[in-house]
Amino acid sequence: MRDLEPAILTIFGITGDLAKRKLLPALYHLAHDKLLPDSFRIVGISRRGTTVNDVLKIIEVSISSSGKSCDKTTLAWLKKVITIVDMDITIPEQYSKLKHELDIIEDSTGICLNRLFYLAIPSTLFGAVTDRLGKEDLNNGCQHGVTESRLLIEKPFGYDLASAKELITTLKDSFTEKQIYRIDHYLAKETVQNILTFRFENPLFSTSWDKTHISHIMITASEEIGIEGRVTFYDQIGALRDLIQSHLLQILALVTMDRPKNMDAINIHKAKEAILKKVLPPAADMTSEETVRGQYDSYKQEVGNKHSTTETFAAVRLYIDEPRWQGVPMFIRTGKALAEKVTEITVAFKDSKAPECLNYLTIRIQPNEGIVLNLRIKKPGFNQQVEDVQMDFCYNEKLGVSHPDAYERVLVDVMRGDKTLFATSNEVLASWEIIEPILYAWQSDRQPLYIYKNNSWGPEEPANNLLKEVSGEWLTDILHVCNVHLPELTTIKHK
Amino acid sequence: MRDLEPAILTIFGITGDLAKRKLLPALYHLAHDKLLPDSFRIVGISRRGTTVNDVLKIIEVSISSSGKSCDKTTLAWLKKVITIVDMDITIPEQYSKLKHELDIIEDSTGICLNRLFYLAIPSTLFGAVTDRLGKEDLNNGCQHGVTESRLLIEKPFGYDLASAKELITTLKDSFTEKQIYRIDHYLAKETVQNILTFRFENPLFSTSWDKTHISHIMITASEEIGIEGRVTFYDQIGALRDLIQSHLLQILALVTMDRPKNMDAINIHKAKEAILKKVLPPAADMTSEETVRGQYDSYKQEVGNKHSTTETFAAVRLYIDEPRWQGVPMFIRTGKALAEKVTEITVAFKDSKAPECLNYLTIRIQPNEGIVLNLRIKKPGFNQQVEDVQMDFCYNEKLGVSHPDAYERVLVDVMRGDKTLFATSNEVLASWEIIEPILYAWQSDRQPLYIYKNNSWGPEEPANNLLKEVSGEWLTDILHVCNVHLPELTTIKHK
Repeated sequence: MRDLEPAILTIFGITGDLAKRKLLPALYHLAHDKLLPDSFRIVGISRRGTTVNDVLKIIEVSISSSGKSCDKTTLAWLKKVITIVDMDITIPEQYSKLKHELDIIEDSTGICLNRLFYLAIPSTLFGAVTDRLGKEDLNNGCQHGVTESRLLIEKPFGYDLASAKELITTLKDSFTEKQIYRIDHYLAKETVQNILTFRFENPLFSTSWDKTHISHIMITASEEIGIEGRVTFYDQIGALRDLIQSHLLQILALVTMDRPKNMDAINIHKAKEAILKKVLPPAADMTSEETVRGQYDSYKQEVGNKHSTTETFAAVRLYIDEPRWQGVPMFIRTGKALAEKVTEITVAFKDSKAPECLNYLTIRIQPNEGIVLNLRIKKPGFNQQVEDVQMDFCYNEKLGVSHPDAYERVLVDVMRGDKTLFATSNEVLASWEIIEPILYAWQSDRQPLYIYKNNSWGPEEPANNLLKEVSGEWLTDILHVCNVHLPELTTIKHK
Repeated sequence: MRDLEPAILTIFGITGDLAKRKLLPALYHLAHDKLLPDSFRIVGISRRGTTVNDVLKIIEVSISSSGKSCDKTTLAWLKKVITIVDMDITIPEQYSKLKHELDIIEDSTGICLNRLFYLAIPSTLFGAVTDRLGKEDLNNGCQHGVTESRLLIEKPFGYDLASAKELITTLKDSFTEKQIYRIDHYLAKETVQNILTFRFENPLFSTSWDKTHISHIMITASEEIGIEGRVTFYDQIGALRDLIQSHLLQILALVTMDRPKNMDAINIHKAKEAILKKVLPPAADMTSEETVRGQYDSYKQEVGNKHSTTETFAAVRLYIDEPRWQGVPMFIRTGKALAEKVTEITVAFKDSKAPECLNYLTIRIQPNEGIVLNLRIKKPGFNQQVEDVQMDFCYNEKLGVSHPDAYERVLVDVMRGDKTLFATSNEVLASWEIIEPILYAWQSDRQPLYIYKNNSWGPEEPANNLLKEVSGEWLTDILHVCNVHLPELTTIKHK
């Protein structure tokens, strides 16, 4: 890729869970596909005496666990470009050692490199690390000051509005907004990236994307698994913060924002920020009408806390104070230990002249990525009956097309300085503003916490009550339209 | 079917081509599926000494040529209900014999039967036959006058506007408009019947079906075969009369008509007649701008007339003088010896904010019946590129659902007195009004007759010129989306 600028990627937490599961495999794939510049370098920070071979071993295990065999040439190339710097990131003095190492590596390439710092570590350490990076002048690009430093951080971006503001202020001491890449890996998924293309390049939908044509919008992100051992983390966070404040409000913004002036990062973020600021948080005394919280029935036992009121299921109804969306409820639902794993957006189209009919457009984000539209047709036969059928487009039909993994896309974009798929501080703050009243209401236990059966659809009755006014229900009979491997239909001739 | 009224169906021309290919097989299937009332009777008119066994033989040959085996019980039942009346339909006196036979058959059933007269004979004989039926009082239901007589006729309903009016007047002497069932077998096809359901029961489309959202509409009915020996008939008729005046203007009416007050026959016909009357015929001096005619290159030799100017290809651009359709061109194309056999409607959706994007919705009437929508999506990969993909619904996915053949539907509807799928005299006249100026211009040879290669897409350049103003082209790369036998996708679970 010609627009990838040469860089040193410094990974804090190279032996951590995120690096193991996502970051290192993504780097392997990018290297394997020869997408990385020759002078690309990786620095892993560790204080456990980790070696380059240990990192390669992590990669090998990860790749082979996905059923692929590891390419030796790629591993050999990675071995050449990886350096381990042994340091305790909590000790300020050790950052000069890091700077020294980075300078040496840069000298060896003979050119100035961008400096990318990936904080794959707990967010509580973000401030300390960026402070030291700043103090060592590592926030200003290469040693000759002609390239750029970029900071990559993972959510959570705060614990509530106040702490999010604090984090933003802290990071600003060392890195400008332009330098900070807040990763929301949902935004880097193909199907999420497609939302804007789909909305604005398809006249049938672009001209129907408003209160006149749309009855309501539903966003679901359900998981089959529970918290899987992440006891301490999850019991402090809960579903609302974990999924809604971050990924799902980002998706809502993509689904409801106005057409940006241009399809560049600045204008897309402008439009996203504008719509997020218009999302109305439920009034403090109305949260029990507008939200539902639940907890799966084995949760308390799992976290070893029989008083835990942390929600593992959250459903909310939101309105947007925009002429385009006046009166159109937006429903967001997420949960763990639910009946199926699915992330999808469903838009319900209406016609005031036939109020009993609705068309549902579903954009399936994962798994079985695709787009499905239910159609009402005449039921074949002698009588005039109507039945629902599905039209679909499935990504898995597009054989031979590689869908980059979200983390590959994240790394490529930070290398080319494209901020389109990263969250801005304004977006993060606007999202916290939206959920703040719900957080407080739930913390103060002013509304019921419904206990639901593992692998059900959560507290179905109260969750469906949210949709009563649109005569709707949450879709629980998830369409299985894109889960089989189909031939490439459009190229088969019938002769 | 409970709403099928008992009847005697009298078929004029029981050994003719239409009876062989369509009518008798349809009766067989209806009998086989036990859809016909017990007291249903068939009378075949013949003057060639035809026997009931001859008719059964015709049925057997027809069914087995379609690859099915003939069911003996069904044939035995048909043998019981068929009577042959030997008469020369051109001799008035013989109609009293017919009346006598019908009375006897009716007596044998012990109840009053509707009397259905199917004229599967050349239209030049329609007047003489209906006149005699009237004179023998066969136009007034059973001998006790308590049931109804119904007349079924096939196109052509006239040769031009004047002769169509004449035919209507002639038939009116003996049968009222209510009694006349003008068969347009296109209207009885599942996919054509679905047009109104699709348009009015799907909010996404019902609210977008106008000049604001639609750029243009294209209707194509192409055949791969030539005239196949129908020399005399075709050389007098041509493509404009054969397909456009009849089937394709009916389809245009279904695609463009307003929502009827109710979905009953009367209101549907009201809406169809209203829109057909608003279709603007091209001005007499403008036909060369608005129409294209062609002839396939082996045609003259085939008909043995080197001076023939009969068109085997016709393309027209029409406008509708209705606020809903102001400025939206409607394109109709038909022809023989073209590259593919396909009948389909394509609607092009536009958005003034993104004028370079169009969405095409295609309703495939035959073959490979289905509905296809092209979508523009982000091309999977690291860059922001747009590509076209297809969403589709295919009728052949609906396994196990029987699609009645058009002629089965025709027979069922005439038995239950449902006139929805038959053309009214007003519709027929309005269609002739639309094509009359084109007929005259072409007859007077005021514009070129393009000779085209057999199995091409006809005179492509002049035909595409018609679409220039909408930056469009005729679709010649027909989508082959519904031609493979797919599993019923919606019921496959991924677990």
